[in-house]
Amino acid sequence: MADLAPLPAIMLEPLVRNALLEDLGRAGDLTTAATVPSHVNATMALVARQQGVIAGLDLALLAFNLIDKSVVTEVKRSDGDAVMPDEVVAMISGPARALLTAERTALNFICRTSGIATATASIVAAIRGQKAQIICTRKTTPGLRTIEKYAVRAGGGANHRFGLDDAVLIKDNHIALAGGVRPAIERVRAGVGHLVKIEVEVDTLTQLKEALAIGADAVLLDNMTNEELRSAVDMVGGRAITEASGRVTPTTAPAIAATGVDLISIGWITHSAPALDIGLDFRS
Amino acid sequence: MADLAPLPAIMLEPLVRNALLEDLGRAGDLTTAATVPSHVNATMALVARQQGVIAGLDLALLAFNLIDKSVVTEVKRSDGDAVMPDEVVAMISGPARALLTAERTALNFICRTSGIATATASIVAAIRGQKAQIICTRKTTPGLRTIEKYAVRAGGGANHRFGLDDAVLIKDNHIALAGGVRPAIERVRAGVGHLVKIEVEVDTLTQLKEALAIGADAVLLDNMTNEELRSAVDMVGGRAITEASGRVTPTTAPAIAATGVDLISIGWITHSAPALDIGLDFRS
Amino acid sequence: MADLAPLPAIMLEPLVRNALLEDLGRAGDLTTAATVPSHVNATMALVARQQGVIAGLDLALLAFNLIDKSVVTEVKRSDGDAVMPDEVVAMISGPARALLTAERTALNFICRTSGIATATASIVAAIRGQKAQIICTRKTTPGLRTIEKYAVRAGGGANHRFGLDDAVLIKDNHIALAGGVRPAIERVRAGVGHLVKIEVEVDTLTQLKEALAIGADAVLLDNMTNEELRSAVDMVGGRAITEASGRVTPTTAPAIAATGVDLISIGWITHSAPALDIGLDFRS
Amino acid sequence: MADLAPLPAIMLEPLVRNALLEDLGRAGDLTTAATVPSHVNATMALVARQQGVIAGLDLALLAFNLIDKSVVTEVKRSDGDAVMPDEVVAMISGPARALLTAERTALNFICRTSGIATATASIVAAIRGQKAQIICTRKTTPGLRTIEKYAVRAGGGANHRFGLDDAVLIKDNHIALAGGVRPAIERVRAGVGHLVKIEVEVDTLTQLKEALAIGADAVLLDNMTNEELRSAVDMVGGRAITEASGRVTPTTAPAIAATGVDLISIGWITHSAPALDIGLDFRS
Amino acid sequence: MADLAPLPAIMLEPLVRNALLEDLGRAGDLTTAATVPSHVNATMALVARQQGVIAGLDLALLAFNLIDKSVVTEVKRSDGDAVMPDEVVAMISGPARALLTAERTALNFICRTSGIATATASIVAAIRGQKAQIICTRKTTPGLRTIEKYAVRAGGGANHRFGLDDAVLIKDNHIALAGGVRPAIERVRAGVGHLVKIEVEVDTLTQLKEALAIGADAVLLDNMTNEELRSAVDMVGGRAITEASGRVTPTTAPAIAATGVDLISIGWITHSAPALDIGLDFRS
Amino acid sequence: MADLAPLPAIMLEPLVRNALLEDLGRAGDLTTAATVPSHVNATMALVARQQGVIAGLDLALLAFNLIDKSVVTEVKRSDGDAVMPDEVVAMISGPARALLTAERTALNFICRTSGIATATASIVAAIRGQKAQIICTRKTTPGLRTIEKYAVRAGGGANHRFGLDDAVLIKDNHIALAGGVRPAIERVRAGVGHLVKIEVEVDTLTQLKEALAIGADAVLLDNMTNEELRSAVDMVGGRAITEASGRVTPTTAPAIAATGVDLISIGWITHSAPALDIGLDFRS
Repeated sequence: MADLAPLPAIMLEPLVRNALLEDLGRAGDLTTAATVPSHVNATMALVARQQGVIAGLDLALLAFNLIDKSVVTEVKRSDGDAVMPDEVVAMISGPARALLTAERTALNFICRTSGIATATASIVAAIRGQKAQIICTRKTTPGLRTIEKYAVRAGGGANHRFGLDDAVLIKDNHIALAGGVRPAIERVRAGVGHLVKIEVEVDTLTQLKEALAIGADAVLLDNMTNEELRSAVDMVGGRAITEASGRVTPTTAPAIAATGVDLISIGWITHSAPALDIGLDFRS
Repeated sequence: MADLAPLPAIMLEPLVRNALLEDLGRAGDLTTAATVPSHVNATMALVARQQGVIAGLDLALLAFNLIDKSVVTEVKRSDGDAVMPDEVVAMISGPARALLTAERTALNFICRTSGIATATASIVAAIRGQKAQIICTRKTTPGLRTIEKYAVRAGGGANHRFGLDDAVLIKDNHIALAGGVRPAIERVRAGVGHLVKIEVEVDTLTQLKEALAIGADAVLLDNMTNEELRSAVDMVGGRAITEASGRVTPTTAPAIAATGVDLISIGWITHSAPALDIGLDFRS
Repeated sequence: MADLAPLPAIMLEPLVRNALLEDLGRAGDLTTAATVPSHVNATMALVARQQGVIAGLDLALLAFNLIDKSVVTEVKRSDGDAVMPDEVVAMISGPARALLTAERTALNFICRTSGIATATASIVAAIRGQKAQIICTRKTTPGLRTIEKYAVRAGGGANHRFGLDDAVLIKDNHIALAGGVRPAIERVRAGVGHLVKIEVEVDTLTQLKEALAIGADAVLLDNMTNEELRSAVDMVGGRAITEASGRVTPTTAPAIAATGVDLISIGWITHSAPALDIGLDFRS
Repeated sequence: MADLAPLPAIMLEPLVRNALLEDLGRAGDLTTAATVPSHVNATMALVARQQGVIAGLDLALLAFNLIDKSVVTEVKRSDGDAVMPDEVVAMISGPARALLTAERTALNFICRTSGIATATASIVAAIRGQKAQIICTRKTTPGLRTIEKYAVRAGGGANHRFGLDDAVLIKDNHIALAGGVRPAIERVRAGVGHLVKIEVEVDTLTQLKEALAIGADAVLLDNMTNEELRSAVDMVGGRAITEASGRVTPTTAPAIAATGVDLISIGWITHSAPALDIGLDFRS
Repeated sequence: MADLAPLPAIMLEPLVRNALLEDLGRAGDLTTAATVPSHVNATMALVARQQGVIAGLDLALLAFNLIDKSVVTEVKRSDGDAVMPDEVVAMISGPARALLTAERTALNFICRTSGIATATASIVAAIRGQKAQIICTRKTTPGLRTIEKYAVRAGGGANHRFGLDDAVLIKDNHIALAGGVRPAIERVRAGVGHLVKIEVEVDTLTQLKEALAIGADAVLLDNMTNEELRSAVDMVGGRAITEASGRVTPTTAPAIAATGVDLISIGWITHSAPALDIGLDFRS
Repeated sequence: MADLAPLPAIMLEPLVRNALLEDLGRAGDLTTAATVPSHVNATMALVARQQGVIAGLDLALLAFNLIDKSVVTEVKRSDGDAVMPDEVVAMISGPARALLTAERTALNFICRTSGIATATASIVAAIRGQKAQIICTRKTTPGLRTIEKYAVRAGGGANHRFGLDDAVLIKDNHIALAGGVRPAIERVRAGVGHLVKIEVEVDTLTQLKEALAIGADAVLLDNMTNEELRSAVDMVGGRAITEASGRVTPTTAPAIAATGVDLISIGWITHSAPALDIGLDFRS
């Protein structure tokens, strides 16, 4: 796996700021303001309560620092690291009020992104040793695509396109409305820049043949049987990147990978991955 | 169940607009712009592919209308309705380009919110006939709390507080830092308005006794056995609202409900509910 | 009075930033840029010119710090403190340009919020010794509710609900459209969370009786005579919180409080309180 | 008085939208959603409950239309009109839910801006027949300067500068830091565009003489006695615009105007004007 | 040239709204409000005053419609069309106040984007008949990249990448810091998705050889002589896309195109293209 | 020339933040993240590659600091300074990743604003020794007016009005719709504040006479011959500021200035000035 480069804080801050303000509402943290004296300091440990893969530490730590700049944080694990139950991921020290006020927002971020990383890692592990890569889709939470795609990378997966504008993916409806695979690809090629790759969804080997003839960069083999996938991989013969798509699970993934496809895309890791259970424990 | 009042569009529009712009990026929908002629109109059906409960129709339809005001939509089902596989939820007609460009954003919203409604409904169904209500937590997706709490209502659940500022929830850490249950409640009562209710998390019957003595509006019975819950409900004797909290599942819920608690709160329905599979099919 | 917990800076900063940019416009501070050399430092004292109660110090100081991070501030008084004419509230030191550029914005905030605190305190003082609390309404300046409600707390008052969504207040029109007090309360109770309190506006003792029978948490006794208020308080007998509402002034407040109501709400302290006169004086 | 041109809706909409969302919070209008059936329509009259001058009708009507586009409004009076108690200012018809949800926001705007117009008009009336104009200051509510300055115009007053960047106002501190009236004006003149007017605050006739010698466009005669004002007006002799400033009230204004000054500026009309009492009455 | 698909209005509106508010400031259009009666309607023609290529009509028309929804527009030419002096591009009818208030903003947009289209078209014309395409760079106006890249397409050019995140461009500094062309490409390939193309800047034929050996998708031949370009094109032999870069002008472009490169990139068309002179004429 | 006061960072930051996020998109800097190790530091020199005048240093340096607070910058030249090719303008040191990621945004700002300053300076130089000042117009890039007008000042020019609201400029269409020069000026004078200057566009000496009779503060002499300008200046005789407008170039400017006008306005310096070539060079 390649290094996992962190996203610049300028990309994360608007999300964390928005989430904190959503939680603070119009009156702030009523409970903490009333019960916790302003001068009390505390230290909390961010602790995994489940086995999984961590992603989103910067988001969680930023939540504390945006509430109070004097909060000090120390990371014990990095994004992409596997953790076991009770493992300490980071230590956070500062005014007790700030820690309690930011707690839920910090956890809402890191539990979600770590859940995605963990789900991704489970599929990646299932096909270890085979050449296929696990990739995500655009089925992400509205507004959080940047950090959810990052979480997929933290889990050992790779990213499909980030939006409608950074790559072309010609699907069945596009083909139908364009009047076939050939006119669809040709029109696209005339209209997009040289750094934009073109992928075509094909449902049959006939369509695949056509797409290859015109020179698609990648082909999305949608809901094919493993048998069909093998034939498709053979027909492609390295001339295009092959992507298998369908209801992939840790159970079905190995056989799909064994067909020789380059990529296995899976929406479930972003739209339905359960949150990873991570909590904050007070340490005296 | 009470009527499910829709949220005003002014509350939904910023979310949908933001999600569309996230997907459109800097260059818009490259594929559709190149392959679909501008004059082609189309009709699509929003179809459930799984059994579940619908929530978020307004979000999905708004996605289409924000891309093109001329899109016409017709709802066939309402938020809160149970649907079966292949059931049509709404029809959408208009320029084919607009339909294809808004498709993913519309689905990303409604699949997520319907997933929450469906998960909620499954727990609600499991305890049908008992007085306990299923409620959610603040473990929601950053930035989407408004619509996720709405989805819980669509699924037949009720809402816990919406943020740190609309109710008081005194947790173990607050009690520790305030020096006990009594000082914590007293300080809160002196500091908040008359319409703010006070709930206290209690881990033992001793703490419960103290909380009742001072007059908490509600008590959060955290991670108690069903035996302990029954004792707690007895001790409360109607003087406060009782909320059971812990790892609730459709399997464990009935026995918890049978202890007589008023509320069962569950984070899973918002932070880990799988998306409901809903798709868009072209209808000639 | 309970401690007055400060609002996190993350809640104040967008307001102050917006106000500074409103004043700076498109060309910045023309006068200061032309007349004041960049290297000159200065010290200013924030001085009360009238007797009153201070609120909003953080807003004022933030105005200076957002213009120039190097500005140093030292508070001499705290929010909630009573001040006499010529009393120094805070000292501000730094580049003279920054002090002059931020001056008006800083004062516009603190004079307004201190005006609200002062108005609140005058009513609070008028009923000292009685149990009734002075509370505010939703009649606040559009966009500034958070800090105006905070100013009410600084003046010794308490807060009514912060918006349409954090508590229920059933008014005469709701009752009329719902078909009576009973159906109105029953529908609300079925639709809101367990931490949402329900208050009902009643104009007559008959309505009050009905509201009590169904178990409203609070009753708003609108525009009743003191005689009627006394009867209402008697009828309630501690079963609900009683709120008197009408044109309350420092003169009329004591008699209203003497009726035994729990709360006296007053819109005037937010919508019509005159600003407290506070100025900035250069100290060599 | 000149015609009062309305501000384009694009300038008002962000303010009204923000205020509505502030009131709706995260859950919307709980009370109305539960008590008012969705199909009920209603008509409300916007009614003055006090004598005064109306300003801000567009803001109030926009609040209803932003909640529901189907609301129909009909104005009976215009901004700048004087109204008597019980006079109907506008009629609003549409879904009862929308009317009740937008009510408070609509009133919070129009009561404030009409309060400013009314306060302005009272001073304007006090000096009727004299040439002096009543003008406002930059002592406005943070974020609302545009509409508060508009309200001053509606009340028959005129506007001082709108910010730090659209005119130069050299005050005592600027003079001190620049080393005198002359260098202050000279530096400003070298640095600003030809359409920027220069006003200088003078505390003595000596300073006034200096300002006139260098050719200030306007002079701010701060806290002078009426005697001093008369001398100043004489000395100016029409060579500059004269502005009197100090604690102006309806009582003191006529004598100040009688000194012959061109302008009387007064902060009170924006920072301390009480709201005008305007309400909404249901009409069957 | 491919069809020029319009950008969805949702992508343009924030830019136009922001520009209108920048021009309206805090007081709106003082001149028009005072001089033009509100009931006067007018018709204006958007007229080219120079020969050129039109781009950005939607932006210009949106400016009028955002000021007043009742403005009616009729396009006579489309984006991408060549126009001659005095040619009418569109007709705009509606309230005279709205037309005058939006005029400058509308023109500021369309003159700039048409200037870019015109500059692009002049280079495209200079190399007509050769296979090379003219492409833009990331040297665009901060905040306006979307519409400036669109204008390049309107002028017959194509787009290079839209940002740092939609394609990889390994420049000299990256190569130096990565320790050579090979490690740079290898690290990138391990870290980016399958739809991300990789382009490498090469200054020498030795570097080019290395880049080709590792399989770069495209090579940026920076500041090479035409002689070197020819050798480079020969060496590439169709295995990668070739992009020539340097100070390209209409004069030098033909010889560069004659070297056989696929693409000629040029920053000048976005960062230094003069505005196209387009005006608005009143038609009775 | 007057001192060039810097704009407060609070006015620049939203522009730079927006531009960085535009470039970072949804995935950040793919190339740098993959090729540059996180621990490598570097130093870059901001170097002029052309002769010109610098403007916008704060914008460029802010770009680096917003990506990484640890970046250290040292300015060698100031805004308004003339530079020669290869002159170092500033040094920037810090994490190599941050330098490379912010590079393009920093340059896009400073090259544009320095281009405007340079163009302005070239016209200013052409009329050196004459009293006329060079001023800009409202023909600026949408959203960037603040910094483009600042750049004009850095180039030795002065600013015309900043928007529709800070001064009155009565143009031909306003005159036509108002029914003449006199009613136009009279209506304006009745409607605007005392610090708002009034300029009138006149096409003929007859109109000029009328404008002077009513007392316009400035007159815009549009597209007059130098002969006509001389007559106009004579007629004005110092009673108003005179502004010449038309297609001014360094070649035609001296003769225009020689007519004795006070101001020469020119749109070209903002809407069509080519960027100044400034680059970043790595220094080991």
